[in-house]
Amino acid sequence: MSAQLLSGKEVAAIVRDEVAHRVAALADRGRSVGLATVMVGEDPASEIYVRSKHRAAERAGMLSFDHQLPADAGQEQVERLVESLNRDPQVDGIIVQLPLPSGLDGNRAVACIDPAKDADGLHPYNLGLLALERGYLRPATPSGIMRIMQHYGIETAGRLALIIGRSLLVGKPMALLLGAKGVDATVVQAHSRTQQLDDLIAKADILVAAIGKPRFIHGSQIKRGAVVIDVGINRTKEGLVGDVDFDSAVEVAGAITPVPGGVGVMTVASLLANTVTAAELAFAG
Amino acid sequence: MSAQLLSGKEVAAIVRDEVAHRVAALADRGRSVGLATVMVGEDPASEIYVRSKHRAAERAGMLSFDHQLPADAGQEQVERLVESLNRDPQVDGIIVQLPLPSGLDGNRAVACIDPAKDADGLHPYNLGLLALERGYLRPATPSGIMRIMQHYGIETAGRLALIIGRSLLVGKPMALLLGAKGVDATVVQAHSRTQQLDDLIAKADILVAAIGKPRFIHGSQIKRGAVVIDVGINRTKEGLVGDVDFDSAVEVAGAITPVPGGVGVMTVASLLANTVTAAELAFAG
Repeated sequence: MSAQLLSGKEVAAIVRDEVAHRVAALADRGRSVGLATVMVGEDPASEIYVRSKHRAAERAGMLSFDHQLPADAGQEQVERLVESLNRDPQVDGIIVQLPLPSGLDGNRAVACIDPAKDADGLHPYNLGLLALERGYLRPATPSGIMRIMQHYGIETAGRLALIIGRSLLVGKPMALLLGAKGVDATVVQAHSRTQQLDDLIAKADILVAAIGKPRFIHGSQIKRGAVVIDVGINRTKEGLVGDVDFDSAVEVAGAITPVPGGVGVMTVASLLANTVTAAELAFAG
Repeated sequence: MSAQLLSGKEVAAIVRDEVAHRVAALADRGRSVGLATVMVGEDPASEIYVRSKHRAAERAGMLSFDHQLPADAGQEQVERLVESLNRDPQVDGIIVQLPLPSGLDGNRAVACIDPAKDADGLHPYNLGLLALERGYLRPATPSGIMRIMQHYGIETAGRLALIIGRSLLVGKPMALLLGAKGVDATVVQAHSRTQQLDDLIAKADILVAAIGKPRFIHGSQIKRGAVVIDVGINRTKEGLVGDVDFDSAVEVAGAITPVPGGVGVMTVASLLANTVTAAELAFAG
């Protein structure tokens, strides 16, 4: 039997729709919602991401502000720009597009964002609130994954959730979200130094692959009926593929996210949701 | 064969000694170090803890400031006091003794502490830095456990570390510390909703028990040679006992922390270390 498809595309459309309604509701009360991006230097991949964020923001009825700094901009110049956006009442969400050119400190730039305008949910204060289970602006990709699981009614309580990868953007916040009260998965965080990974994969009821290696996990390794969340977006000669070998995994898993059309498309939708949440809170005062 | 004893008492004495030297070095340059506690209402257990913190601070050569508010103090009164301590140049570390009387919000009070004076390392900003692996003021108990493990040369890389408990004070920050780069354990975070706990305990190379149930884990459940860190401090008719049945575990484990004299004594030493770190950073400007 073939696994249920967890369509990020479908859920993202719902989220974008919700966001558009919330933006319209604020507009009715005379309040605009604005998303600002900060990009330093030229990077083709980053430019594509940034453009897609602006397009999505505009489709949702938001204002969007595109700030470009030259590749040789200094740290101080980046931070001054962020601080001016912190003060700008038209800006509700700020994104510093990472990675910054070498020589610049992306972490420090992100830490300059007003936590109340942190569209990516990556400011230390918001990550701390996440650990405290009080976060409201959450890292976009893990937050999108949680939304997919909720949409499809995936049970999590007491189940063994293996997260492969411990990045700040995905692995670590994912562990906090899946292990939080009310979600209640038993979370295992694995990484490149993990021994006995095969054994852990074979036992996982929920498998989140955030490794960055094309088709690293084969269906034969996966527990029958497992929920497979594939965060990988690897460019290969055959096109975009995930960290999981989809064709073999779909025969074993109970449910699986495809690549593309799975987790990836949720990320932009999630950061739009963060931005309108920030605007609503600012508007409520 | 009997397990190696991991003596928190011994390591805490070393830490306290280091702290006293660092305090003395600052004193030589005309800089005092001060620890302030905020306690609301009367709670015999909390009073004992607070007294022991002041005693330890004074022995390390610090100034210590004891602030008591009546049980009927309002949230605003607590926060005003914290903010006045934030501004007080003699105060380097601030502790809001938890739990606060019902009706008061301990989380909010802690979030009022200047993150740079957060002796307990529980401010959201510092927890976020911990997730980012850039934390310098870390939650006291997990930080004490890491110090014990370092002292005894416990290997962590690639080993399976099971943390039972997901409290903000112990379980969650412990997971972040054990899974960080350079420490590199594969971390499993279990809790009351976890299924197959026995199976996980049997596999764990490192077992951190932060459950709060006397002798919940018996030696027969533990993997031979495992490192057992017992965070439990349970008052029973026979005195203080841990979450692990020491007498049976000591025969199976490779190394084990006793109760008392294990993890518990590290907590105060760790928060003194945080306080002098805060003072050094403030002094360095």
